[in-house]
Amino acid sequence: MSLPNATKEDVKDAKHLATDTTKASGNPESNQPSVLPSTPDVNAVEDLADLLDGPFKERKEALRELINDPFLLPRVEGTLDEIRADNLEKVKIVAENGRIQESFSPLNGGQGQVSAGVSSLELLAQVNNSTCIKSGVQFGLWGGAIDALGTERHIEFAKGAMDLSKLGCFAMTEMGHGSNVQQLETTATYDPETQEFVINSPTPGSKKAYIGNAARDGRWAAVFAQLYTPDSDESKGVHCIIVRIREEDGTDAPGVTTSDHGHKGGLLGVDNGMITFDHVRVPRENLLNRFADVAEDGTYSSSIDSMNRRFFTMLGTLVRGRLGVGASAAGATRAGLALAVKYANIRRQFEAGDPGQEERLIDYRQHRRRLLIPLAKSYALAMFQNNLLERFQEYTDAVNAGEWDPANPTEQQSFASRETETLAAFFKSATATHANETLQECREACGGAGYMSENLLTTFRADVDIFTTFEGDDTILRQLVGKNLLTAYGKEMSEMSPFGMAKYVVSNIGDFLTRRSGIAASVQSISDRVAGTGSLFDAETQLRVVQSREEHVLNSLVRRVQVARKMDRKDAAKVINRAQDHLLETAIAYGDRMLVQSMIDAEDRLPENSPARQVFEQLRHLFALETIVKNADWYQEHGVLPAGRVKAAKAAVNDLVDSLAPWSEVLVDAFKIPQVVLDRPMMVNGGTDLS
Amino acid sequence: MSLPNATKEDVKDAKHLATDTTKASGNPESNQPSVLPSTPDVNAVEDLADLLDGPFKERKEALRELINDPFLLPRVEGTLDEIRADNLEKVKIVAENGRIQESFSPLNGGQGQVSAGVSSLELLAQVNNSTCIKSGVQFGLWGGAIDALGTERHIEFAKGAMDLSKLGCFAMTEMGHGSNVQQLETTATYDPETQEFVINSPTPGSKKAYIGNAARDGRWAAVFAQLYTPDSDESKGVHCIIVRIREEDGTDAPGVTTSDHGHKGGLLGVDNGMITFDHVRVPRENLLNRFADVAEDGTYSSSIDSMNRRFFTMLGTLVRGRLGVGASAAGATRAGLALAVKYANIRRQFEAGDPGQEERLIDYRQHRRRLLIPLAKSYALAMFQNNLLERFQEYTDAVNAGEWDPANPTEQQSFASRETETLAAFFKSATATHANETLQECREACGGAGYMSENLLTTFRADVDIFTTFEGDDTILRQLVGKNLLTAYGKEMSEMSPFGMAKYVVSNIGDFLTRRSGIAASVQSISDRVAGTGSLFDAETQLRVVQSREEHVLNSLVRRVQVARKMDRKDAAKVINRAQDHLLETAIAYGDRMLVQSMIDAEDRLPENSPARQVFEQLRHLFALETIVKNADWYQEHGVLPAGRVKAAKAAVNDLVDSLAPWSEVLVDAFKIPQVVLDRPMMVNGGTDLS
Ligand SMILES: Cc1cc2nc3c(=O)[nH]c(=O)nc-3n(C[C@H](O)[C@H](O)[C@H](O)COP(=O)(O)OP(=O)(O)OC[C@H]3O[C@@H](n4cnc5c(N)ncnc54)[C@H](O)[C@@H]3O)c2cc1C
Ligand SMILES: Cc1cc2nc3c(=O)[nH]c(=O)nc-3n(C[C@H](O)[C@H](O)[C@H](O)COP(=O)(O)OP(=O)(O)OC[C@H]3O[C@@H](n4cnc5c(N)ncnc54)[C@H](O)[C@@H]3O)c2cc1C
Repeated sequence: MSLPNATKEDVKDAKHLATDTTKASGNPESNQPSVLPSTPDVNAVEDLADLLDGPFKERKEALRELINDPFLLPRVEGTLDEIRADNLEKVKIVAENGRIQESFSPLNGGQGQVSAGVSSLELLAQVNNSTCIKSGVQFGLWGGAIDALGTERHIEFAKGAMDLSKLGCFAMTEMGHGSNVQQLETTATYDPETQEFVINSPTPGSKKAYIGNAARDGRWAAVFAQLYTPDSDESKGVHCIIVRIREEDGTDAPGVTTSDHGHKGGLLGVDNGMITFDHVRVPRENLLNRFADVAEDGTYSSSIDSMNRRFFTMLGTLVRGRLGVGASAAGATRAGLALAVKYANIRRQFEAGDPGQEERLIDYRQHRRRLLIPLAKSYALAMFQNNLLERFQEYTDAVNAGEWDPANPTEQQSFASRETETLAAFFKSATATHANETLQECREACGGAGYMSENLLTTFRADVDIFTTFEGDDTILRQLVGKNLLTAYGKEMSEMSPFGMAKYVVSNIGDFLTRRSGIAASVQSISDRVAGTGSLFDAETQLRVVQSREEHVLNSLVRRVQVARKMDRKDAAKVINRAQDHLLETAIAYGDRMLVQSMIDAEDRLPENSPARQVFEQLRHLFALETIVKNADWYQEHGVLPAGRVKAAKAAVNDLVDSLAPWSEVLVDAFKIPQVVLDRPMMVNGGTDLS
Repeated sequence: MSLPNATKEDVKDAKHLATDTTKASGNPESNQPSVLPSTPDVNAVEDLADLLDGPFKERKEALRELINDPFLLPRVEGTLDEIRADNLEKVKIVAENGRIQESFSPLNGGQGQVSAGVSSLELLAQVNNSTCIKSGVQFGLWGGAIDALGTERHIEFAKGAMDLSKLGCFAMTEMGHGSNVQQLETTATYDPETQEFVINSPTPGSKKAYIGNAARDGRWAAVFAQLYTPDSDESKGVHCIIVRIREEDGTDAPGVTTSDHGHKGGLLGVDNGMITFDHVRVPRENLLNRFADVAEDGTYSSSIDSMNRRFFTMLGTLVRGRLGVGASAAGATRAGLALAVKYANIRRQFEAGDPGQEERLIDYRQHRRRLLIPLAKSYALAMFQNNLLERFQEYTDAVNAGEWDPANPTEQQSFASRETETLAAFFKSATATHANETLQECREACGGAGYMSENLLTTFRADVDIFTTFEGDDTILRQLVGKNLLTAYGKEMSEMSPFGMAKYVVSNIGDFLTRRSGIAASVQSISDRVAGTGSLFDAETQLRVVQSREEHVLNSLVRRVQVARKMDRKDAAKVINRAQDHLLETAIAYGDRMLVQSMIDAEDRLPENSPARQVFEQLRHLFALETIVKNADWYQEHGVLPAGRVKAAKAAVNDLVDSLAPWSEVLVDAFKIPQVVLDRPMMVNGGTDLS
C-alpha cells in the first residue's frame, strides 16, 4: 500500500516538525516521524479496526449487528419505573441474542469464552450503559458468581441466570462496608437441625446496599456473608450463598426486606436497592461450594487451608467483573470520542486564515490537543485490554481443562494469578478514570450541543461516573496494584493491611523485575543511561524512559515502607499512610509502562509501510511522549531527562497532534461505533453553514 | 484568642514537618509553619466566615435564611414539564424575597447593587442550580440586558422582568454561532413606513438555540440581531431588541416558532429552547437604545463611533453574567466540599493503626489530598471573587453617578474596563473548571453514597457541567484573557482576530506590567533571583515565584506571536494557532498569580494570632505551594527552582494536608452551607458503626 504523495504544504509542515523538535531540544532527536499526508487514506480504517478488535473480531462483528438498534439507545425521560422496565426489555434482547452467555463455563452450558462477556459489555457500553451494567449484573455478577463459585448442584441457577428465568443480584456491599469487603457483617449461620443456613443482618450497617437488580427485578441474590458453623463462634470468613429475595410476583420473600435507592446520578435503567435479612432460612445446598462446603452435620471443609487465601480465591470472581467494567468504560469512551471528533470535523467557528470561511474546530491547536491526546490513550488501553483478555482466556482454558486448580495452584500459578489480578486492577481503574475525563472533555468540545441529551454525551458521562467506584474503587484498586508490586506478587492482598504490607515488602525489587512477565522488558536499572542516549522517537528509548520511572518510583516506595518493618502497629500504619500518595503513584507509573509497551508491541502487528502503520506509529509517539511530558516534572527532578529533552518532547506532542488531526476521523472510524449512535442531531445541525 | 496547648503528638508531628521539608530540599526552608493543634478551635469558624462573606455579609446572611428551605432542593424525578413547573415556583420565591432585584439600576427601581445579583446566585447554587440559573436568565440576562442596554422607554420591561409579570429570554446564541457572537445571522431590518423592525431568521443556522426560558415560560426575548437601516446594505452590527415570542396563553406569537431542546445533561428545571423568526414586526421603540438608536425616518445614530467598540460595549452586559456564573460555580463547589468533607469525618473504612476501629476517611493521606487541595483553591477563588465584586461595584457606582460614561470612557477607564473584563473572564473560567473537577472528586470521595441523588452531589455536578460553556466557553474566555494580556488591555477584543492579535501585540511587556493594577505586584523581572532567596513559606517568595512564571510565559508568548506581524493573513493565522496552547497557559499563569496574591492579601484581614489566621495561613501555603508543584515541571525547565526546592514544596503540601485535616470541618463550616443541604441521608447512615 503506497502513501499518496506529499503536497508542498506537507513538506513545509514536515520541516516545521523537524525544526521545532531539534531546535528546542538542543540535543537533536533523530528519527522524528515525518508529518502525515494532509489527506488521510481511508484504507487505514480496516487495518486499524482489525488491530483494535484483535483476536475477538468475529465475535465483535456479530455483536455490532445486534447493538446497531435504535431501540437500545438510552431512555432518559419518563418515570424511574418506566425507564427500568424499558431497560429490562433491552436486557432481554441481549439474552435472546445468546452471545453473552458463551462466557459461562462448559459445566453450565457455556463455552468458557471470557471475551463473550467482556466484549458484549464493551459494545453495549457504546450504545447504552444502563443496558450494559444491568446485563453485567445479571450475567457477569449474579451468573458469574454461580459459575465461578458454584458446582453441579447450582446448574439450574446458572441456567436461570443465563435465560433470565432467574433474575438475580450480586449482594456483596453493605451500608457499612464497601471497599473493605472482608469485614462484611451479614451472617450465614448453619443450623444442623433443619440443614439450613440462617441469613441475617445483625446491624444497620450490615444492610446490603447499592445492589443492582435489588430494587425491582431481582428474585434471587448471591449473598456474601460471614459463615458460622456449630463448631466455633468464629466466622469461617466470607462465603457466598444463594437466597431468594422476592417471590415471583415481586413481593419480598419471608424475612427479606428490599428497598429502593431511587434516583441516581446515572444508570437510571438499573434498579439499585437495599436488602435486609431477618433470619432468612435457605437450604444447605444454596452455599456455592466450589471451594468450601458445610456437611449435613455442620462440618466445615475447604480445599483451601488459609482463610485469607480462601477469601481471595472467592473474590477472584471480581477480576472478571473488573475486566468487564474496564472494557465498558473503554467502549463508552470510544463512542464519545467518535462523536466529538466527528463533530469537530464539521463544526466551524471563527474566521482565522481564511476570510469568509470559518475554521473547523479540529483545525484549532487546542481542540487537537484535547481530543487527540485522549484518543491516543484510548488506543493504548485497547491494545492493553486485548493482551489482558488473551491472558485471562488462557487461564480460563487451563482451569476448564483441569490443568489449573484455583484452589491449589502451583507457586508459579499463584504468581501469575496475582499478576493478572494486578493487571486487571490497573486496567479497571485506568479505563474508568480515562472514561470520565475523556467523556467530559468530549462534552465540552461539543459546546452547547454536547449538553443536549439527544447527543448522548452527558448520558454516557453520567453513567460511567460510578465506574470509578464499583467493582473496586479506583483509589483502592491503585493501592492494590501498588501493594502487589511492593511484595512482588508474593502475598495475597489480604495480608496487605497497612501493617502487613510493611512486613512483606520485598527487600530487593531486582528479583521481582526479573520475574515479572511482559514483553521486551529489559530488567537492569537503566535510568542513568536514558538521558544521553537514544532519540525520543525510538520505541526502545520511550520504553526505557517510562520504565526507568516505574523502577525508580517503586524502589523509593520500598525504601520508605521498609523502615516500618520494625515499628509497632500504630507507627507502622502512620508510615504507610504517609506513603499513600507514593503508593498510588507507583501504580500509575507501572500502568504507564504497560501501556507504552502495549503500543510498541501492537505496532508490529500492522502491515509494514501501510498507512495504518504510519498513523499508528504517530499515535504511539503521541501516547509515549505525552506520558513523558505528564511526568516531565519527575524526570527533571530525578535527573533522568534534561530540560532540553523535556522541551523537545513537548514540542513533539504539539507537532504530532497537528500531523494526526487530518486523520482524526480515520482513527475514530476504526472504533466501528454503531451508526445509531453516530446519527445524532448535532451531526446534522452542528455545522455553521446550515443553509 | 489563644491556641490550645500542643500535645506531645503535635510536637512529634511538627518535627516531622520540619524534617521532611528541610531534608528534602537540601536548602533549608526557614519559616515553615508549625503543625496545627490536632483539636480544632471552632471559634475560627466565625472569623473565617466573615472573611469569606467579606463586604457582603449582611446581604448573604439575609439570603441564607431564604434558601434554607427544603422546598428549594432540586427535584430530579417526574416529567420535564413537572420539574420545570416546580422550578418556576421556586423562582417565584426568589422574586418575592425581593433581594435579587436590588441589582437593577436606580432608574428601574433597583439599588445598583452588583452583589444583590451575584450573591443571590452564589447562594442559590448551594441549594439548587436549576433555580439559580433560571433566576439568572430572568433577572440577570433578560432583565440585565434591559437594565444595561435600555433607557427610560424600557422601564416597564425592566419592571416586568423584576416582578416576573414579563418572563423573558436572552436570545443571543444561534445554532451556527455560539462563541463567535459577532457573526450572528438573525436580522433586524428597519421599515420606516410602519416604523417597525422586522426580525428574521434567514438561514437554518440563524435559529436561536439553547435559549433559557424559551421552551416553556418565556413570553418575551431580548434578541441579538444584525441591524439594518435603509441607508445601507451593510449591517450596523449586532444590536438588542425586545420581541414578544409568545402570547400570554403560551401560544407562539405571530411569525415566531419556538421549540424545545427537551432533556439535557442537567439543569432539568430550566426550559431551554429554540426560536425562529419569520419576518416578525416589532415597534421601533423596542430597540434597546442606550448606545445606539434608529430615528423614525430610519436614521441610525450612536454615541459610539467605532462599530467594534459599540459591539463590545453592548456585550459588556456579559461581564456581569460571568460574575454571576462564576459565583454560582463557586457556591455549588463549596456545598459539594462541605458534604464530602463532613462525610469523610464520619465514614470509616479499613483498620490501620488501631485494631478494632476502622479509620475515618479523612485520616487517609490521599483523602486529605483530594479534598483539602481543592478546598484551598475554593478559598483562593472566594478571596478573588470578593475583590472582583468590589471592583465591579465601584464601576457600577461611578456609572450610576454619571462619573463614568460607558459610551465615552476616558483612556484610563477603557483600560480599567478591559482589565475588569479580563478578570471576569478568568474568574468565570477558573471557577467553572474548578467546580466540575471538585464536585466530581467529592462524588468519588463519597463512594457509592455519592452517586445517590438524595445526597445531591451528582445533581450539582450535572448542573454545573455546562457552566464551562455558557456565558462564554472556558477555552474561549482563556483566549480572551491571553489576548488582552498580549495587547496590554490596549485593544477591544474584537480586533483580536488571530490576525489582528499579531498586529497589536505589545512589543514590551514592561509597560504593561507597570500599568496593571493590583496589590504588591513588584514589576521587575525577578525570576532569576527567585531560586536562591527566600523560604518557600514566605508570602513574598510565593508571590515572586508564581509571578516569575506569569511574566516568563507572557514574554515568551509575545516573542512567538510577534513574528507573525509581518506575515500575510494565512501564515499569521498559522503562527497564532500554533501558539494557542501557550496562549491558554498564559491566562492560567496570570490567574494563578492573581489567586496567590488574593490569599496573601486576605490573610492580613484576619485577627493577628487568631486560630482563624493560623489555619488560613496554612491554607494559603497549601494553595501557593500546590500552585508551584502543579508547575514544577516548568520551574525546573526554566531554571527558576532547583529540584531540591521542588521536592521541598511537594513534601510541604503533604505536611500541610496532614496538619489541616483535623480542621477540615472548621474550614467547610465557615462556608455556612444551609442546613437543608447538609442534612443528607449519607450523613446519617454513612458511618460504619451504624448500630
Ligand atoms: C450504581 C451502583 C451499583 C452498584 N452495584 C453493586 C452490586 O450490584 N453489588 C454490590 O455488591 N455492590 C454494588 N455497588 C457497591 C459498590 O461496589 C461500592 O459502592 C464500592 O465498592 C465502594 O464502596 P463504598 O461505597 O462503601 O465506599 P467506601 O469504601 O466507603 O469508600 C469511600 C471513599 O473512601 C475512599 N477510601 C476508602 N478507603 C480508603 C483508604 N484505605 N485509603 C484511601 N481512601 C480510601 C475511597 O477511595 C472512596 O473514594 C454498587 C454501587 C453503585 C453506586
Ligand atoms: C443549558 C444551556 C443554556 C444556555 N442558555 C443560553 C441563553 O439563555 N442565551 C443564549 O444566548 N445562549 C445560551 N446558551 C448558549 C451558550 O452560550 C453557547 O452554547 C456557548 O456560547 C458556546 O457556543 P456553542 O455551543 O455554539 O459552541 P462553539 O462556539 O461551537 O464551541 C464548541 C467548542 O469548540 C471550541 N472552540 C470554538 N472556537 C474555538 C477556537 N477558536 N479555538 C479553540 N477552540 C474553539 C470551544 O472551546 C468549544 O469547546 C446556553 C447553552 C446551554 C447548553
